[in-house]
This record gives sequence, C-alpha cells and structure tokens, in this order.
Amino acid sequence: MSTIQSYIDQHKERFIAELIDLLKIPSISADTAFSEDVIQTAEAVKIALDQAGCDRVEICETKGYPVVYGEKIIDPKLPTVLVYGHYDVQPPDPMDLWDSPPFEPVIKKTDLHPDGAIFARGACDDKGQFFMHVKALEYMVRENELPCNIKFMIEGEEEVGSDSLADFLNENKELLSNDIILISDTGIIANDVPSITTGLRGLSYVEVEVTGPNRDLHSGIYGGAVPNPINVLAKMVASLHDENGHITIPGFYDKVEVLSAEERAEMAKAPFDLEEYKKALDIGDVEGENGYSTTERFSIRPTLDVNGIWGGYTGEGAKTVIASKAYAKISMRLVPHQDWNEITDLFTKHFEAIAPDSVKVKVTPHHGGQGYVTPIDSPGYRAAAAAMETTFGKKPVPQRTGGSIPIVALFEEVLESKTILMGFGLDSDAIHSPNEHFGIWNFLKGIETIPHFFKNYTAHWS
Amino acid sequence: MSTIQSYIDQHKERFIAELIDLLKIPSISADTAFSEDVIQTAEAVKIALDQAGCDRVEICETKGYPVVYGEKIIDPKLPTVLVYGHYDVQPPDPMDLWDSPPFEPVIKKTDLHPDGAIFARGACDDKGQFFMHVKALEYMVRENELPCNIKFMIEGEEEVGSDSLADFLNENKELLSNDIILISDTGIIANDVPSITTGLRGLSYVEVEVTGPNRDLHSGIYGGAVPNPINVLAKMVASLHDENGHITIPGFYDKVEVLSAEERAEMAKAPFDLEEYKKALDIGDVEGENGYSTTERFSIRPTLDVNGIWGGYTGEGAKTVIASKAYAKISMRLVPHQDWNEITDLFTKHFEAIAPDSVKVKVTPHHGGQGYVTPIDSPGYRAAAAAMETTFGKKPVPQRTGGSIPIVALFEEVLESKTILMGFGLDSDAIHSPNEHFGIWNFLKGIETIPHFFKNYTAHWS
Repeated sequence: MSTIQSYIDQHKERFIAELIDLLKIPSISADTAFSEDVIQTAEAVKIALDQAGCDRVEICETKGYPVVYGEKIIDPKLPTVLVYGHYDVQPPDPMDLWDSPPFEPVIKKTDLHPDGAIFARGACDDKGQFFMHVKALEYMVRENELPCNIKFMIEGEEEVGSDSLADFLNENKELLSNDIILISDTGIIANDVPSITTGLRGLSYVEVEVTGPNRDLHSGIYGGAVPNPINVLAKMVASLHDENGHITIPGFYDKVEVLSAEERAEMAKAPFDLEEYKKALDIGDVEGENGYSTTERFSIRPTLDVNGIWGGYTGEGAKTVIASKAYAKISMRLVPHQDWNEITDLFTKHFEAIAPDSVKVKVTPHHGGQGYVTPIDSPGYRAAAAAMETTFGKKPVPQRTGGSIPIVALFEEVLESKTILMGFGLDSDAIHSPNEHFGIWNFLKGIETIPHFFKNYTAHWS
Repeated sequence: MSTIQSYIDQHKERFIAELIDLLKIPSISADTAFSEDVIQTAEAVKIALDQAGCDRVEICETKGYPVVYGEKIIDPKLPTVLVYGHYDVQPPDPMDLWDSPPFEPVIKKTDLHPDGAIFARGACDDKGQFFMHVKALEYMVRENELPCNIKFMIEGEEEVGSDSLADFLNENKELLSNDIILISDTGIIANDVPSITTGLRGLSYVEVEVTGPNRDLHSGIYGGAVPNPINVLAKMVASLHDENGHITIPGFYDKVEVLSAEERAEMAKAPFDLEEYKKALDIGDVEGENGYSTTERFSIRPTLDVNGIWGGYTGEGAKTVIASKAYAKISMRLVPHQDWNEITDLFTKHFEAIAPDSVKVKVTPHHGGQGYVTPIDSPGYRAAAAAMETTFGKKPVPQRTGGSIPIVALFEEVLESKTILMGFGLDSDAIHSPNEHFGIWNFLKGIETIPHFFKNYTAHWS
C-alpha cells in the first residue's frame, strides 16, 4: 500500500495528461455557441468519476446544463463528504491577449511556478481544482484509503450564476444529503502561505440599456441638441460612486456587516505588499472606498464595477453618429447580510430614478448570490487546517476573499450543511483573464492534501 | 430641344436605375475590408461621367482612395463651375436595424416621400446627390444647354475626413481652377420649404484609450480595490460637460463666433416645431447647452458627443471581469473661428490632465476640419437662390446646419473660391443611420434645379 506522495510520484504524468484533455474542451457556459462543448465536458467528467472509482455516476438533467453526480458509499454509518465543483469556464476573450490558445493547454514555467504551470482557460477555475478531488478519490479507492462516504456534484453553470442549481438541490435533497461540503474553487495567499477561505462576497449582476433617439443620428445635424445615450450612461455610471468612493445607491449599505476593530486588526496581519500589488498589475495607484485598506476593499466591503460597456460605432476608423442605445453590464459584490435580490431592486429603482427625462432606461438582472462566512471552529475547518498543516508544513491563515460562489449560501439553506473552501490556486493565476494558469505544484499539492482532510474529518466526526 | 422637365419625364426611370446600380456597391471608406468596393465605385463614377458627356475623365490616385475628375470645357472665356461630391459612404451598422439590406436598394413610399424614396446606404449621402449633377450635365450636353465650363471632383474619403484631399488640391490647383464650387451634400428644411446651407460646423474627432490593470481581472477578487478603466472613462467623459451643458475643456470657447441678437432673431424665423422634433425622435426631452435654442445648439454652438464606447465583456450573458482597457470615440463640432487642430490639442491636454494617477490614457486624433460660413450676397448664392425659386416656386431660406464638410474651408484656402451648398435631402432621410433614403421627388427636383443654377450664374457672371 503506497502513501499519497508515492502514488502521486508514480502517476503525476497521467494526472496532468488527463487534466489537459479536459481543458481542451471549450465549455463556455455564457455563450450558447459552445453548448455542445459544455455537454461534451459533462460526459468527460462522468467518465473520469467512473474511472476514479465511484460506484454510481449520473448526468442529471436540469433546466440548463446538467449536473454530474457521482458517489461511493462505503458505510451509511460513516460521515459523507459532498465535493462540489464546476466544469464550465469563463469566456476567453479578449483572445488577442492570450500568449497561447485558451483551449490548447501548454505547460510553462513562471517565477511563481518554477515547476511549471498549465496555461488554459479553466486550468484553475475550476477544472484543475475539482479534478484534484477526482484524482484524490482514485488514490483513496485503489489504495483502500477512503475512510468515509463521498459524493460529487460537478455543475456546468457556475460562471453564469448557477441558475438551475436551486431547483436541483431542492429536488434531490436525499441524494445530496451530507455532513460537510468540500469545495476547491478558491486560492491560497502563496505557496508558502497556505490559507483557507472563510468568507465570500455575494453578487448582484445587472445589465442596463439607455435609449435616446429612436434611431442612430448624424452627430453633425443632431449633436448637442438631443440626448446622447452614451454621454447619459457615462454620467449615470459616474454618479454611482461619490468622491469618497462610496456607492450612492440609497440603502445600499444598510445591512452591511460591520467588523470590530479587533477583527480588522486580525485580518490586517495577513501578509500583503501594496507596492508589489501595484507593480504586479502595473497600476499607478490603487482606487477604492475611503477609510478602508486595499485588502478590506476586496474582502469585507461591498463594491460596484462596470464589467462591460458598449454603444455607438466601435469599429475601425471614425463614424460621426449619435447612437440610439448604450449598454453596460454592472456587477455589485456584496458582503454578509446584504440580500442580493434586495440590492438588485435598490439598484434598479435608483438607476431608473437618476435617468433624465430625455432617455428611457431598462435594467435587466442577470444573476446573483448571497455572501457567506464560515466559522473557523467547526470540525470541517479544523480537519482542513490540519490537512494543510501536514502537507504545507505550516498552519493555514483564515482569509476572507472578494470572490463569490453563490451556491455556498444556498447549500446552507437547502442542504443545511457547512461548506469548507479549501482551494489551491493563486490570485496571480489570472482566472477570468487571458493566460489563466494553474501551478503543477499546486495541482499535486491539492491531490496530496485532500486525503488528509478525509482522514482528519472522519477521525474527529461523531 | 426639350426642356429639363420634359427630359426628366422622358428619362427618369433610367436615372433611378443608374443610381440604384451605383448604390449596390458597398463603398465603405472607414473599413479596409471594403477597399476593393471603394475602388470599384470610383470606376463606376468614371464611366458615369464619360457617358454624361465629359470630354476628359480621370481616376486620380492619392495616398488614400482616388479622386474621380471630369471636365467639359466649352470656352475658356466662360466661367467654370467645380462640382464636388463623394462616392464613399458611412458604415451601415447597426445592421439589425435596417428594414432592408443597406446595399440592396429598394423604393418605398413614406409620409414625407409620397412619390417613393430609395432606401440604401449612400442614397442621400452622397451618391444620390452628386449623381443629380451627373444627370443634369447629361441633359445640358445632349440638349446643348451647357452655358459654361464644368469640372467634377468626386472623392472617396469624405466619410473618413478627406485625409488625402489637401495634398490633391495643392498638387492640382491648375486642373481644379474654377470660379465657383457647387456641392449637394446638405439638405432643405422641407420639400415645401427650400433652403440653402450658409454655415457648416467644423469637426475634431479623437479616440481615447484608458488603461487600468495590465490584464483583465476577476471582479470578485479585485473589484473595488483597483482602477476600473470603464468606471474611470465614464467619470472622465461625464466631466466633459458641466451642469449647464457647457463643455469644460479650458479654452474651448475662446474663439467661438458670437452672433448678434439680430442674427439670432433672424435665424429663429426658420420654421421649427420642437414638439414635432421630439416626437420624430421619440425622445422625452431635448438636451443641450443652457441659454440656446435647439436650432442654435446644432448650428451656431460647438458641441461634444461620444460617438462610440466599448470595454470589458460585451458578449452574451455575464462575465465578472474588470477590463484592462476601455475606449471611446469622441467628436467635437466646431463653429467658425475655432481651429480644429487647436481644439484637438486642447482636448488632448485636458483629457490627460483629468486622468487619475491610477490609470494611463492615450488620445489619438482621427481627423477634423474647419467650420465655414458663406455670404448670402455673392453671385453664386444669388444664382442658387434664383434657381430654387424657379423650381420650388418660393425663395429658399438661408440656413446654418450642424454638419461638417471639412473641405469647404480647404477649398477657400487652397483654391480661393467660394462654395455654394445647394443640397436636396431632408434631415429625416436618416443619413449615417439605418434605413438611409433619398426621395425620388428630391432626386428629380435636384436634377431640375441644377441647370437653372448654371444658367443664372453664367448670365450674371462678369
């Protein structure tokens, strides 16, 4: 019987090859042009779970893309860990900023990844990370090291808001029943600074449309006399923040969780180098809400960002036109206690209220999710912390992060179980960006750590 | 020898058929993908001028698209009229707003065009309008009614700023020498309210790029902590106008021509129905500079409009990204005495000055041109007014318009001749917009009016 380290040494080339095959399928859930690829990816995940040793694997249809379910029940009296992940990926554009095609994975060394990293869309978010669990299962099954029951739920709509998941959970409470949920879709502070995510921000994502004249107009004949929807949209967007970087939507901050000075002081201990941060992004300065540090701005504070804007002539050369319509995609990151539906309503009311009489505005909610904070004194957290301490050689830091995994709050509500966010990526892995990658070291470290979590969790379970 | 009316009655079906053939070629000068079509259009114009009776026709190469030159010199001692027009057209997008394909001309009746209008990109701007002169020449030559010399200069870069024309004029002063320049690239107030354009606005067209982080970022992990170039661009654009609709660029208004109360009162007499205007555009209200009427805003006052904006994710669905870059195309309409190069510099300095330290900005001038005002007591104006009075049955109204024909000022500078802007389109013809069209009545009325201009001008020339 080999240890997890020796098993990894023996099989790592195959692990990487299998992941690369998975990364070659462009499972872009946001673009219907790729729907067949998304379905094909679900099939590939099903096969991977079969081969890893699940007793029962199913592709479960939903209103949207299917959920791949797998399980290995060794003894109903033992605890059950539900592993969640997603096989869909973000759109890769802007394509021209990729050094290699997003769906033709390549391995390259970087300063932070001297052992090499796999460059491909989805490498870290989340194909590479959920696949660690598949390979960890393979080890535990083949080497008879699985100490408890395990279930997998790998979905295909995470990048578009997991629209079908609430129904799926409610219709399959029994199937999905578990004692703890384990997710690797977050990161660590650094390879020598392990951390576990204890807080996530919620999300409200809307699209706005501003209509001026009923048709595009000649800017010479009409310019300066009619409402230009692009100028109007720019003015409206600009007004959503005041001069202190506060969001101006009435009621937006009403339910925001206020942290104590102690809590903020504790958080401030996590290593963070502002100069390094600015240098890495090549920005002259940081920006954000006055009165909060950069780490607080992206973790404990709600924010509003335009994710996309378009209108008028955007092609080559010049067109002297006043557009009929202008559009923006706007997302708000929320903190615990802010309800995303309520915030979406507040945004909609406010945006309609600030529109001048000269234009018509339409606000369309895309999707959203609640924020989440997990206690650090739970059996699950302790099992994860101990596993990381074993494999990293030091205690992980509890960390709030700005990202959102909307379904974590949903899990607590519907399945009534806690979630442990034990991820192995780095912020620099460029998820959602061109040249997304995932360190080979991190990939293998995840596979090494996961079996320890199962052992620890089962040992202290009662 | 037939009159122009009887000649038109006899040949109008052919005139329309020939124009439709010309409109089928997508001569989009702003998009290099159509460069062969632009060249092909020049060839078609050459053939049309040959057939109409020019003695000498040439396709003159330039740094950009060629100029088609044609002439019929009947007697060097007689005056020479130079007809200018352009065979290039605006890009047709947004395509989905066209009721019929932009380069598949169709004739449909409208409320304003009960005799039918030709719907196609370029129908009014400017293929349909310069072609009136080609057909008027055909009549004057075949019926021996040409009273003076005529030259044609039809260019292919008007919609992208006539970049090559200054060189062409300077290199061909002799060839282009003339006594008066006649252009039909403007409109009349209504079919029962003839007008002649006596003022044009200048233009400065720039493109701006705002760069935040060096790569697209995950809005959850970075949102609220880094400069979002879209939010920054929106704020910068919004700041270009103050609460009174004045442009905030320092020095922008310094050289603006100030009209007397009398002049403004005279202008105010031109028929204009604000409620009709708002209704036709389906806008809740007009917008613009405080202290000026709508007609003044688009004629005697300079303006700034965003013609296009883009950045981040603009595709289907939602992408939680913070873009690295955001862009806008911005044009300023200028009035007499404002120098477009000077305004472009003022804009560039100001835009760079208001950029926060957190971002990098780049301003790229696209093109521009000077404004122009023509006197209404010149022989040329009187000849045009008399011609219109003959064919419309009432005196035309002198009118300032907001559009720009940058080369008019250039003509005066290089060729030292005045320009008469005798156009026959309507503001509602949707030039630069989807469903551009040109009334059959207007097309034929132009052909009918032009020979009267030649006769009047020659008669009073000395």
